[in-house]
Amino acid sequence: MTVEDILKAHPRPLIADLAMLVDCIDECADCAAVCIVCADACLAEDDVRALIRCIRLCLDCADACIAAGRITSRQTDPHLETQRTVLEACLVACRASAAECERHAAHHEHCRLCAEECRRCETACAALLAALSMP
Amino acid sequence: MTVEDILKAHPRPLIADLAMLVDCIDECADCAAVCIVCADACLAEDDVRALIRCIRLCLDCADACIAAGRITSRQTDPHLETQRTVLEACLVACRASAAECERHAAHHEHCRLCAEECRRCETACAALLAALSMP
Amino acid sequence: MTVEDILKAHPRPLIADLAMLVDCIDECADCAAVCIVCADACLAEDDVRALIRCIRLCLDCADACIAAGRITSRQTDPHLETQRTVLEACLVACRASAAECERHAAHHEHCRLCAEECRRCETACAALLAALSMP
Amino acid sequence: MTVEDILKAHPRPLIADLAMLVDCIDECADCAAVCIVCADACLAEDDVRALIRCIRLCLDCADACIAAGRITSRQTDPHLETQRTVLEACLVACRASAAECERHAAHHEHCRLCAEECRRCETACAALLAALSMP
Repeated sequence: MTVEDILKAHPRPLIADLAMLVDCIDECADCAAVCIVCADACLAEDDVRALIRCIRLCLDCADACIAAGRITSRQTDPHLETQRTVLEACLVACRASAAECERHAAHHEHCRLCAEECRRCETACAALLAALSMP
Repeated sequence: MTVEDILKAHPRPLIADLAMLVDCIDECADCAAVCIVCADACLAEDDVRALIRCIRLCLDCADACIAAGRITSRQTDPHLETQRTVLEACLVACRASAAECERHAAHHEHCRLCAEECRRCETACAALLAALSMP
Repeated sequence: MTVEDILKAHPRPLIADLAMLVDCIDECADCAAVCIVCADACLAEDDVRALIRCIRLCLDCADACIAAGRITSRQTDPHLETQRTVLEACLVACRASAAECERHAAHHEHCRLCAEECRRCETACAALLAALSMP
Repeated sequence: MTVEDILKAHPRPLIADLAMLVDCIDECADCAAVCIVCADACLAEDDVRALIRCIRLCLDCADACIAAGRITSRQTDPHLETQRTVLEACLVACRASAAECERHAAHHEHCRLCAEECRRCETACAALLAALSMP
């Protein structure tokens, strides 16, 4: 409830529908955390050499999620194109990380969970991006 | 449940009790998000000149929370002193931000909510720090 | 020379021409630092209420630069579309921040310097983006 | 010259001697970039399984450096204990990363360069920390 409550107390109009905005900010934070854990868990696996691409894409995804979460959290004097492009980068990074984690989901439960989280974040970014792109 | 589930799937022993670790990682993410919103909401207030110190300390707190959340999320080959000092920095930043936000809580609901979140994160960091400092 | 030297020691082929890549990574780091200082300097100015949009866009720019710098620093198993979209977001954020800082350049030396740095980073991102988009 | 020039244009007194402050902010940015490249280069090495601890400590170091660089860049209404603890965390992370990279310096040039950079950043943090701790 934390992010929802504080956004309700913001003095400016929100950049999008409250529920959609909260969902995106929350998923960016969750996805960043999960990707950092997945990259670290992959590092500790015996078959780490098969997981190099997975580690790299999870690290990218965490970085893109943190930037998107920070920038969409701000409601004061928003710059629409910055918000749209950072969401696009996050969506693309989530999709790449999800696709790679899905390849390892049968062998590593952390990859299965990470793929699911990346897909949720991809969906939340896509929804907010669509809302910000409406005329 | 996301961070808890993926930590359960990590191949290495966790650096601390699962519930305590999850609580700290989750509070770091929540506190970073809430501090970014509070700094941004303060910027939009008519009395922004009374909120300069609040904005500054919220920005510091978000940065310290993101670093602490990233570093405590990793379980592979942990370096205890790095984890302890980054938690200490996060705890100190949360305490400073909470104390300043509390001064504005009666006038700004976002400061009241941010102070509460900073106190929760301070408590979670203190608990994990104590656990990591036991002989 | 630091980033150039270590990129030369990387075992994988670089994602782009060394000089162009180093320039982009260095400008992202410089621009992030300068934008953080400019936002903080604006906060301390007597006319802070005229600088709200400047502060906000500098904070966005710093976040976008840090993400772009982190992601383009990685050469192992790169995902081209992630790198392109994060560079696009960085370029857009730099352009927005530069344009706003330029409006205050006559009154605040930190805004003048920040605008210059944002333009340099915008140019470096555009060059790398063009190189990564060639068939 | 970028960070030095903009700090000279800041309206508030700096938290420390200009040269010392600039050195610390610059080293934090350089060290973060170098550690991200070193972790990524290690991932691509044939002996990645011998480099797991190195990768993990470089990732921690980059995160600690980014937080310390962001927080020490701010001069407005500084909170001394936050700045000291985040510098302490950065110093500790640099030292750990340097020590591990030194173990691989003979085999991997990127580890040798990264160890050198971590030692420079450790020294810069120690100098600023000492200055901020004087009565």
